[in-house]
Amino acid sequence: MTSLDDLPLRPELRGRTPYGAPQVPAAHRLNTNENPHPLPDELLADLGAALGSAALDLNRYPDRDAVALRADLATYLTRTGGQPIEPGQVWAGNGSNEVLQQILQAFGGAGRTALGFTPSYSMHPIIAAGTGTGWVDGHRAADFTIDPGAAVAQLREAAPDVVFVTSPNNPTGTAVDLDTVAALYEATPGVLVVDEAYAEFARTGTPSALTLLPGRPRLVVSRTMSKAFGMAGLRLGYLAADPAVVDAIQLVRLPYHLGSLTQAAARAALAHTDALLATVDAVKAQRDRIVDALPSMGLTSVPSDANFVLFGHVADASAAWRALLDRGVLVRDVGLPGWLRVTAGTPAETDAFLTALGEIAPDHRTTLGD
Amino acid sequence: MTSLDDLPLRPELRGRTPYGAPQVPAAHRLNTNENPHPLPDELLADLGAALGSAALDLNRYPDRDAVALRADLATYLTRTGGQPIEPGQVWAGNGSNEVLQQILQAFGGAGRTALGFTPSYSMHPIIAAGTGTGWVDGHRAADFTIDPGAAVAQLREAAPDVVFVTSPNNPTGTAVDLDTVAALYEATPGVLVVDEAYAEFARTGTPSALTLLPGRPRLVVSRTMSKAFGMAGLRLGYLAADPAVVDAIQLVRLPYHLGSLTQAAARAALAHTDALLATVDAVKAQRDRIVDALPSMGLTSVPSDANFVLFGHVADASAAWRALLDRGVLVRDVGLPGWLRVTAGTPAETDAFLTALGEIAPDHRTTLGD
Repeated sequence: MTSLDDLPLRPELRGRTPYGAPQVPAAHRLNTNENPHPLPDELLADLGAALGSAALDLNRYPDRDAVALRADLATYLTRTGGQPIEPGQVWAGNGSNEVLQQILQAFGGAGRTALGFTPSYSMHPIIAAGTGTGWVDGHRAADFTIDPGAAVAQLREAAPDVVFVTSPNNPTGTAVDLDTVAALYEATPGVLVVDEAYAEFARTGTPSALTLLPGRPRLVVSRTMSKAFGMAGLRLGYLAADPAVVDAIQLVRLPYHLGSLTQAAARAALAHTDALLATVDAVKAQRDRIVDALPSMGLTSVPSDANFVLFGHVADASAAWRALLDRGVLVRDVGLPGWLRVTAGTPAETDAFLTALGEIAPDHRTTLGD
Repeated sequence: MTSLDDLPLRPELRGRTPYGAPQVPAAHRLNTNENPHPLPDELLADLGAALGSAALDLNRYPDRDAVALRADLATYLTRTGGQPIEPGQVWAGNGSNEVLQQILQAFGGAGRTALGFTPSYSMHPIIAAGTGTGWVDGHRAADFTIDPGAAVAQLREAAPDVVFVTSPNNPTGTAVDLDTVAALYEATPGVLVVDEAYAEFARTGTPSALTLLPGRPRLVVSRTMSKAFGMAGLRLGYLAADPAVVDAIQLVRLPYHLGSLTQAAARAALAHTDALLATVDAVKAQRDRIVDALPSMGLTSVPSDANFVLFGHVADASAAWRALLDRGVLVRDVGLPGWLRVTAGTPAETDAFLTALGEIAPDHRTTLGD
């Protein structure tokens, strides 16, 4: 039997394991920040009609430039961001991972570097590696915030070609203030990507980096329909930026990358934006319920603008993860000593999580770092 | 207004234009080798049911490993190739372009090279560039065939890390015999990709490189549902290889790259394989009708195992392309002096094409090269 070692694999891939949350059975899957609310019935009906219509032309290639979908996304962003976004400023792909990969193919790649502020979305360095882009770990303060002065200094020293800022940050949960984003933009001659996958869950009054786009042609704001829109299975990520950035991506995108069914389903969902986003407030209420319950168990959390909570401190994150799983609750061990990440979902999921956590807290909590 | 020149684009992308067939209006679109036959009614009904079912779970991430779909694809390949193919030998992506990009990310990339025998599928060098892989143009004989001796010598000299053989070749149409494929495999320590996008249209008795897989762990056979299956809008490409190759791809694939709707639709289509492939013989008949009609117009063609015909000789391919378009027939100028490519589709499309070609042939044909 042939093994990977027998193949002419790129040397830097040797010994690696595939990315991905462990797919283990559990009564409550609170590990991948999905939206547990099913799609509203009114959308399901329209979705069926839209897909049926798209199926009639399935023997033809899709619209290579997804023009209608990008216009719908621009309309949504204009409404939500308080900032006019034109269709030519929007690009869409099979998940924001693909959009970020295209950004790195155009502006990163061999001989270039990308920098992100660790801990952050763990796919950023993986996508960088997949495009041959070097990776630089940026620093955060002990409370997981980005200190603008230190970050600017690091950008000036490392001079990365692409900078990632995740806001709200994953896995820690906190949004980055726009003064910091603006300062980072000024400190780099490269492309600054603000990954706003969780933006719709931010606490009231948290503005989007969309408002910074005018006059900043190297700024990219990425979004996804996987989280607030509850469409993780669709795989639809997108970005807003200067139209020149979209021109650049069209040099590296695979032609016809986005299928007709995906385009049709995304458009149907966007036509039901209000119904879909009606779940956001409910999810935020569960997030805040988790945050509020932690101190009584002798635990704490990082301030969250997302649909998840990073909670601690636990003495051994791996042991606490296992203890919760033994109680039917699957959370995410993100590799941060003392911390675990839990997705905020339905009231019943919060009940199950808090009950399980209450049971294990006495054995697992620690005052370390408090 | 910002232009691409104002952005920190990778230097090798400067001055490039996006890939893609010109999207111009025409009564008969015979330029992208689509299957003009609409999906059978029995499939459309099942497709609607499958998509409706998948939509119910659209708030959850798709099966990251597409296990059920890969099993269905393995069943199809086993049936068609006369060769047992296991699910673990199959990998699927959003079009074969994505699958080929993943191959290059794992086995090509910066500091490595890929070789293809030009003229061939024009995306191969583009995908190589997008992954930072160097490109080497392999030679063909004057009749567009690959001479095994010359090709082996070139592989030994260039020592590419990835070799592409398109069979049937696009845009020329001819399948490569398996002795040549086997000889090329022996001549390279790298990965040999046989791109069989058009395999289902091959003339009777043309075997697939699937039969060469046993004992050749560096051999990859790629396929697509865009052509014979008539599902270009779905974007579903796949490959068969040693399971170790699939392991390698899982190190570079973006997690959850293939959406739930795509997986469900592809599975529904594969359950109707016989009905879908019933159009293949009809398309081949039109292809052969085109081939047979050319000599009476003073024209010729390259032997075709595909759903298209490379025809010539014309004095000025660009002028002949325009003259056909003026008559409502859009064919493809593939950049080969003296030749144009036309997709074989319905009898009515063949009628329109042959009528238009008959009108322009006296002014555009040439005996050059005959």
